[in-house]
Amino acid sequence: MRDLFQEELVAINNDISQMAELVGKAINKATESLLFSDREIAERVIESDVLLNDLAAALDERCTMLTAKQQPVATELRSILATMRIASSMERMGDLAVHVAKSARLRYPARAVPDELVETFRTLGHLAEELTTQLSRLVTNPDLTLAQEIQKSDDKVDALHRELFRIVLSPDWSHGVEAAVDVTLLSRYYERFADHAVSVARRIIHVLTGEPYIDTVLH
Amino acid sequence: MRDLFQEELVAINNDISQMAELVGKAINKATESLLFSDREIAERVIESDVLLNDLAAALDERCTMLTAKQQPVATELRSILATMRIASSMERMGDLAVHVAKSARLRYPARAVPDELVETFRTLGHLAEELTTQLSRLVTNPDLTLAQEIQKSDDKVDALHRELFRIVLSPDWSHGVEAAVDVTLLSRYYERFADHAVSVARRIIHVLTGEPYIDTVLH
Repeated sequence: MRDLFQEELVAINNDISQMAELVGKAINKATESLLFSDREIAERVIESDVLLNDLAAALDERCTMLTAKQQPVATELRSILATMRIASSMERMGDLAVHVAKSARLRYPARAVPDELVETFRTLGHLAEELTTQLSRLVTNPDLTLAQEIQKSDDKVDALHRELFRIVLSPDWSHGVEAAVDVTLLSRYYERFADHAVSVARRIIHVLTGEPYIDTVLH
Repeated sequence: MRDLFQEELVAINNDISQMAELVGKAINKATESLLFSDREIAERVIESDVLLNDLAAALDERCTMLTAKQQPVATELRSILATMRIASSMERMGDLAVHVAKSARLRYPARAVPDELVETFRTLGHLAEELTTQLSRLVTNPDLTLAQEIQKSDDKVDALHRELFRIVLSPDWSHGVEAAVDVTLLSRYYERFADHAVSVARRIIHVLTGEPYIDTVLH
């Protein structure tokens, strides 16, 4: 029975890695659709989200059945519950990528972000994708250095998020209300995406090391 | 053992009702702080959120220990898992009330929403609070009419959310970029709050009736 349990945990980790990869691809493509105002790519991001939802549901069901059949002890149970929350956070990250793609689609053929902010959103896209790569690596290698890198990536996203607010609200803003609203919401989507990544990182460490969230590292 | 299980479920339902009540109070007070630009009330909403976080954590722990000790069968387990997600959604609803209060505080002594939108945000506040009252009632009386009412309240919130977008983006908007950004984010907080309420309603029905999410009622 216990061997089966361990086998299931390996399968679950594979699922998490796969989800992280899909989420990374989603935010990469969503950012591309935003920066190049590419409607076709935006549509593909929106359509592909069903894959992530299905994976999250399957992972959830796998965890539920594992719990029901194997009657895990409390520490094992906490790991399984943490895994279900990881699946749910990553599904939400996929939704946020979809929100970015929908913003791109809404303004097509125009671009939702003004020229002067293209580089900032490109960087946000890179950081968001990097976070998913770091999450994938964390699953196979749950070390603290990597956890700290994830925190640093999130800090960079937060700094850009604040910077965008400053720009939009400065007296020099010349792009009008619609662009201000778009930039505000888009910036928030990336910021929430990164927040979820940090929360996933905490839980991965919890699942793989049995340690609680290590709030000293991931504050 | 099974009696203990049933007793625990009753205690869990009480916790859910209590959380719904606290969340309702939080969004009511947050809206008040927004409409009257009342910094003191805003501070209290922000400080009180720790109560909700503690309740959510306690409910989570109660569910985890119930699962570990009682080794529930699959249907019972699904109910417990749904309850943990209810706790997590309601904690998030509390966070959204805090976001509203923080917007109010940020613009104090000015008001974050222009005069002409005060009534709309008052209605959003009423609807959000009504949703939490409906959730409380749903815990003791999981019937479909009530579930439909919750869906209707959410539909009204969505309609106001779209209406606010239309107003902010219309050529007649005369309140500048900062107010547009504030209104956009505030409107999104209420919309997300209502979305979470619908998701909680689905799960309450699932927990209390054993039925899946009844997507025909709560679409």
